[in-house]
Amino acid sequence: MSILSPRLQTVSGVKDVLPDEAWKKRQLEYALVQLFGQWGYQEVLTPTFEYYEVVAENDSLEDELFKFIDREGRILALRPDLTTPIARLVSTHYAPKDLPLRLFYTGNVFRYESTRRQREFSQAGVELIGAEGVGADVEVIALAIESMLASSLTEFKIGIGQVMVIKSLIEEFTHDPGEIHTIKQAIITKNFVGLENILQNQEWSKKPREELLGLATLNGSREVLQKAGQLCTNTGSLQVINDLEKVYDTLENYGLAKYIFFDFSILRNFDYYTGIVFEGYATGLGYPVCGGGRYDGLLSRFGLNAPAVGFALGQERVMLAQ
Amino acid sequence: MSILSPRLQTVSGVKDVLPDEAWKKRQLEYALVQLFGQWGYQEVLTPTFEYYEVVAENDSLEDELFKFIDREGRILALRPDLTTPIARLVSTHYAPKDLPLRLFYTGNVFRYESTRRQREFSQAGVELIGAEGVGADVEVIALAIESMLASSLTEFKIGIGQVMVIKSLIEEFTHDPGEIHTIKQAIITKNFVGLENILQNQEWSKKPREELLGLATLNGSREVLQKAGQLCTNTGSLQVINDLEKVYDTLENYGLAKYIFFDFSILRNFDYYTGIVFEGYATGLGYPVCGGGRYDGLLSRFGLNAPAVGFALGQERVMLAQ
Repeated sequence: MSILSPRLQTVSGVKDVLPDEAWKKRQLEYALVQLFGQWGYQEVLTPTFEYYEVVAENDSLEDELFKFIDREGRILALRPDLTTPIARLVSTHYAPKDLPLRLFYTGNVFRYESTRRQREFSQAGVELIGAEGVGADVEVIALAIESMLASSLTEFKIGIGQVMVIKSLIEEFTHDPGEIHTIKQAIITKNFVGLENILQNQEWSKKPREELLGLATLNGSREVLQKAGQLCTNTGSLQVINDLEKVYDTLENYGLAKYIFFDFSILRNFDYYTGIVFEGYATGLGYPVCGGGRYDGLLSRFGLNAPAVGFALGQERVMLAQ
Repeated sequence: MSILSPRLQTVSGVKDVLPDEAWKKRQLEYALVQLFGQWGYQEVLTPTFEYYEVVAENDSLEDELFKFIDREGRILALRPDLTTPIARLVSTHYAPKDLPLRLFYTGNVFRYESTRRQREFSQAGVELIGAEGVGADVEVIALAIESMLASSLTEFKIGIGQVMVIKSLIEEFTHDPGEIHTIKQAIITKNFVGLENILQNQEWSKKPREELLGLATLNGSREVLQKAGQLCTNTGSLQVINDLEKVYDTLENYGLAKYIFFDFSILRNFDYYTGIVFEGYATGLGYPVCGGGRYDGLLSRFGLNAPAVGFALGQERVMLAQ
C-alpha cells in the first residue's frame, strides 16, 4: 500500500475489484445471463443516471440517492435500483399490444447508506411485465430459485410474504402514514415485542391486534397458510392466502417446494409492492441475497397501466455466500 | 411514445438499450472478453465514480467531467475513462515485483460533450503495465487489431503516430503552453493550412518549420518512415522512427501489417501519452472506434513508477460500424 493523499484513493463506499474476484463475478454474470435467456427473458440496459423525478417517488430510497445537478440545472440521480428505470423504459418504448414482456438486466446501482460500507452494488434481475396472477408470480419465484442454484448456492431458502394481507390489517387500525410506518418497521425488523407494545399502547381493538400479531409471527411451510386462513377474516385476505397455497402447490410440482417457506413479516423496503413479495437467504449471511415481488402500480406512473412482477439478485452478496 | 413530463424520460445524452441492441452488445463484449483472456489479460473493475482529484489531472477531459459533491463535502466525478482509475488501482494494490501486469476492463464512462449527443459510453480495453519497448507496443497494437477482427469488423485500419517526434519539434519553436496547444490543435484537426500560417506568423526559423509541416502531413505505410527519417535531425527522433520501423516489421511478421499505416498527425486528445499512439478507423465512420498508446508518466502520479501502454475500444462505435 502506498502512502498517498486520501483523495487519490477510492471514494468511501466503493471499491476496486481485482482479477480473482472479477473472474468469479464474470462467471456468475454469465451463468445468470444464460439462465435468464433460457427462460425467454431478453436483456435491456438503462442509463446509469436518471432525472431525480424518475427515481425519487420511492420513499424508502429517496434519502439514499446520489444526486447531482446537470449543466441545464436539472437534478439527476444515480439509479438506486433498476426496476423503476425499466418501468420507465417499458412505458416509453412499448405499447399494451407488446405485453407480456420478459426482460432481464445486469448493472450497478448506487445507494448512500450511512450504516453500510458499500454504496455501489451490482445487481442482476428480471421483470415480467403485463402478466398477473399466480402463474406469473410462480414463474418469477421459480426463476429466483434457479438463479440461486445457477449461482452455485445450495444452502438457501426463499421466504415468501404478501404485503396486502398485512396492509389491510394495519388499515383496520389506522390510516395515519406515520403510524403505518412505525408498525411496518416493527414487522420488517421482526421486533414483535415492540409491535405488541405499539398495538396495545394505541388501545386499538383487540381482534385485529391478535390477527396482526399472529400473522406477523407466522413462519413455516404450507401448514402456515392454513393458520393464516384461520386468523384472517376479510374476504380479500382469504383469496390472497388461497393464491399462496396455489403458489406452493405449483412449486411443489416443479420440485422446488423444499426451497421455500412463508413469512408474513416479509414486507420489503419498497413502497411499490402490491402483492406477493419474497427474499432469498443463504446460510451464514445476515441479509437477503435476492428479493422481489409484484408491483402493479409502478408502470402507470410512466403512462402504461400494466401489472408486473420481478426480482433482483445482489451479485456481491451471492459471491459472499458462495 | 407516451406523452409524459420530460422529467419522466431519459436524461439528454444517455439512452435505453432495447433487446436487439443489448444482445449485439453482449455478443461483442463476450467476444472481446474471450480474446483478452486468451492473450493473458485479467479483468479488473473500478468504481463508477472517483474523487475529482484522481481524474481531473487530464486537461482535455476536465471540462467534460460529471461532478458532484458527496455528503462529506468532497468533490466526486463519474469516471471519464478507465485508464486513470486503473493506474490508481495498480498503484494502490500492486508492487513493482508484480509487474508486468496485463489487465482488461469493460465499463461505462461519462463525458459531458456539449457538441455530441452521447454522454455515457461503453468501453472495453486493456492496459499492459510495467513493460516498455517495441515488444510491448506491438503486443497492444496487435491486440487492438485482433479486437477489431473479433468485433466482426473487416474494413478498418489502425493509424499509428508518435507524440515524442512532434513534441520535440514543437519545443524547438516554443515552450509557451498556449502556443503549444494551438499548434497541437491544428495538427490534430489536420488543419495544415492553419498550421502553416501559425508557424509563419511567428516568424520562427524555417528549418524546423519545414520539418514539422513535413512530418505532420506524412501519411502512409513503411515508406513514410524513411521520409520521416530524412526530415528529422535530432537523435531522439531518429531512434523513435527506428523503433516504428521495428513495430512495422514485427506486425508484418504477424501478418497484420496490412491493417496499419503511419500518420504523425495522430496525437490523441490525452496529455498523458508519452510515446506511440494509435487510432482505429472503420470504413464509413467519421471518428475512431478505438485508440490508445503509451503513457509512461501516469502511474507515478499514484505512487508507482512504471511504464504502461494500452488501448480502449468504444463499444457503441464498433456496433455502428458492424
